[in-house]
Amino acid sequence: MPNPAETATPAALASLDLPQPYLLFLGDVEHPAFAKTALGLRDWARELCVGEFALPGAGVSLNLPAMTPAQAHASGARAMVVGVANVGGVIPPAWLPSLLQALDAGLDLIGGLHQRLNDIPELREAAARHGRRLIDVRQPPPGLPVANGRKRGGKRLLTVGTDCALGKKYTALSLTGELRALGVDATFRASGQTGVLIAGRGLPLDAVVADFAAGAAEWLSPDNRAEHWDVIEGQGSLSHPAYAGVSLALLHGSQPDAIVVCHRPGRERMLGYPDYPLPSIEETIALNLALGRRTNPAIRCAGVSLDTSHLDAGQAQALIESERARLRLPVADPIRGGAALRALALSCVAGS
Amino acid sequence: MPNPAETATPAALASLDLPQPYLLFLGDVEHPAFAKTALGLRDWARELCVGEFALPGAGVSLNLPAMTPAQAHASGARAMVVGVANVGGVIPPAWLPSLLQALDAGLDLIGGLHQRLNDIPELREAAARHGRRLIDVRQPPPGLPVANGRKRGGKRLLTVGTDCALGKKYTALSLTGELRALGVDATFRASGQTGVLIAGRGLPLDAVVADFAAGAAEWLSPDNRAEHWDVIEGQGSLSHPAYAGVSLALLHGSQPDAIVVCHRPGRERMLGYPDYPLPSIEETIALNLALGRRTNPAIRCAGVSLDTSHLDAGQAQALIESERARLRLPVADPIRGGAALRALALSCVAGS
Repeated sequence: MPNPAETATPAALASLDLPQPYLLFLGDVEHPAFAKTALGLRDWARELCVGEFALPGAGVSLNLPAMTPAQAHASGARAMVVGVANVGGVIPPAWLPSLLQALDAGLDLIGGLHQRLNDIPELREAAARHGRRLIDVRQPPPGLPVANGRKRGGKRLLTVGTDCALGKKYTALSLTGELRALGVDATFRASGQTGVLIAGRGLPLDAVVADFAAGAAEWLSPDNRAEHWDVIEGQGSLSHPAYAGVSLALLHGSQPDAIVVCHRPGRERMLGYPDYPLPSIEETIALNLALGRRTNPAIRCAGVSLDTSHLDAGQAQALIESERARLRLPVADPIRGGAALRALALSCVAGS
Repeated sequence: MPNPAETATPAALASLDLPQPYLLFLGDVEHPAFAKTALGLRDWARELCVGEFALPGAGVSLNLPAMTPAQAHASGARAMVVGVANVGGVIPPAWLPSLLQALDAGLDLIGGLHQRLNDIPELREAAARHGRRLIDVRQPPPGLPVANGRKRGGKRLLTVGTDCALGKKYTALSLTGELRALGVDATFRASGQTGVLIAGRGLPLDAVVADFAAGAAEWLSPDNRAEHWDVIEGQGSLSHPAYAGVSLALLHGSQPDAIVVCHRPGRERMLGYPDYPLPSIEETIALNLALGRRTNPAIRCAGVSLDTSHLDAGQAQALIESERARLRLPVADPIRGGAALRALALSCVAGS
């Protein structure tokens, strides 16, 4: 645990504000699995994506307009996002000319790989020469504090889950939009790199050193006006054998007033962990409330978000209805929206 | 969460083996609070400490023989430990001549500050010239994997706590010794920097990136023979507003068969967090068992370790007796040892 003498909190942490909109760089990526970030941006923030730029060998297209960096800049783009990963998370030398071309065209570069753009001398030199920025989204801001556990002003909603990859980010984005439509002053708070690219700010919680993870979560949703709602993107699951610690740090540091539990009906095993059965929605609610009470005794479950993308409209509607009756909570699929999503949003802010 | 493509597990991770015994460097440290690591080594591993070496302005002594690096080397020391922190965790220029003197005398250098020895060019150059090592204990080994959650061979005991700083390391060290005295093949596994310095190996879990913390815990207590016991040093507390995520990652990754709950009688508030009441011993047992079952359904509580250093012998004995009767579990203060500690150790391995 850090010695207090070594964790002096800086007066203020740099707030990451990303230049938007984006040109999405695909390199020579061969499979959509490696283009998760680019696909996420296209699906969840289409209005931020001016176009795509790929090398001749690429086997993936986002079905966005193909553009050179110069064309994208002329169309309003302000940064090129390296939105693909390759095995090992490194930037292959074959991509460098394209990255230099973007800097030359007046675009900043945003990277989300393990290998940092700022560690590549050619890019550093070119960025300095052109007065452009190299922004590594995976890099947490320096000087994050240890959590202090003190109650902050404003209200907070955290999306949690039975597992990874079942809609915590999308649920938070959708609820933010729905709350705003209801006249609630709400802000989406991104805790993962795709969320950060969408929001233009935030923090990749999974890249923070463990001792500072709860402090990073406190930093992510700072003190605010009493009637303001932060809608915080959840990470992992308290039942996940690898990531539960991240989820608990986020739960404690977020001090949520309300949680929404995200689940994918039909998933019976943790993704990639066949020995681990998925916890039930009820178990997930109980566990999050029991642990979340430590930093916010008033925590409550506002409802459930289901990913029903594998069902047809009729099946999805029937399932949402039956789960609502069974759990006695608002249930919605944010992608399907409608009255169910509106009811879930209203439940989140009920009584506030 | 890491893309699988970016987290390829290396064939083998470097195992940190530290050169021992040590000369303890105190610099010009003014207050014992900044000499926590050096004091810990003296108190818990006196046999590893050949002597101490301080600058003229130092206001702290360990009451070890004062030695120059050359004298310490002649007395068998193999490394000098920078066992003090100053505000900011950096190495002041005034310490450099002493560190160079140690390298010159044939000692390796071991650092436990935020600032890494390997980041100081003068030290790197001198170490290369003398063929000596600069070892940064705070630096986790590169290439730690994401946890896989798979059951490993061998048995595991984890010390957990109601809070930080109430004897989890010392309890693990004492129980390791007691188990060995009982003929059990037991290994102490260090998860913090002082523990790593004592054991000569291990990993500072609090310095690991959050996504890899449970994986680091799996790495720390690897597959072993069925009858072997790893005794793992715990970190933080599941009820700690800043460090609960670290504790949960360690609990999940350790997959303990047995836990021992550490507590300091009379402490009513979390250290440094006056708004947070301490959880009871019973609550701490229940929470650790409930969450620990996720990766080891057979987890059980073997007993309780009390830090009674603020009580006299009679008071301590009476308290240990009354807590044993109240909790119906073995209770001991490892520093006081005796039959109670023997009973606690026997309870840990009961049935195995």
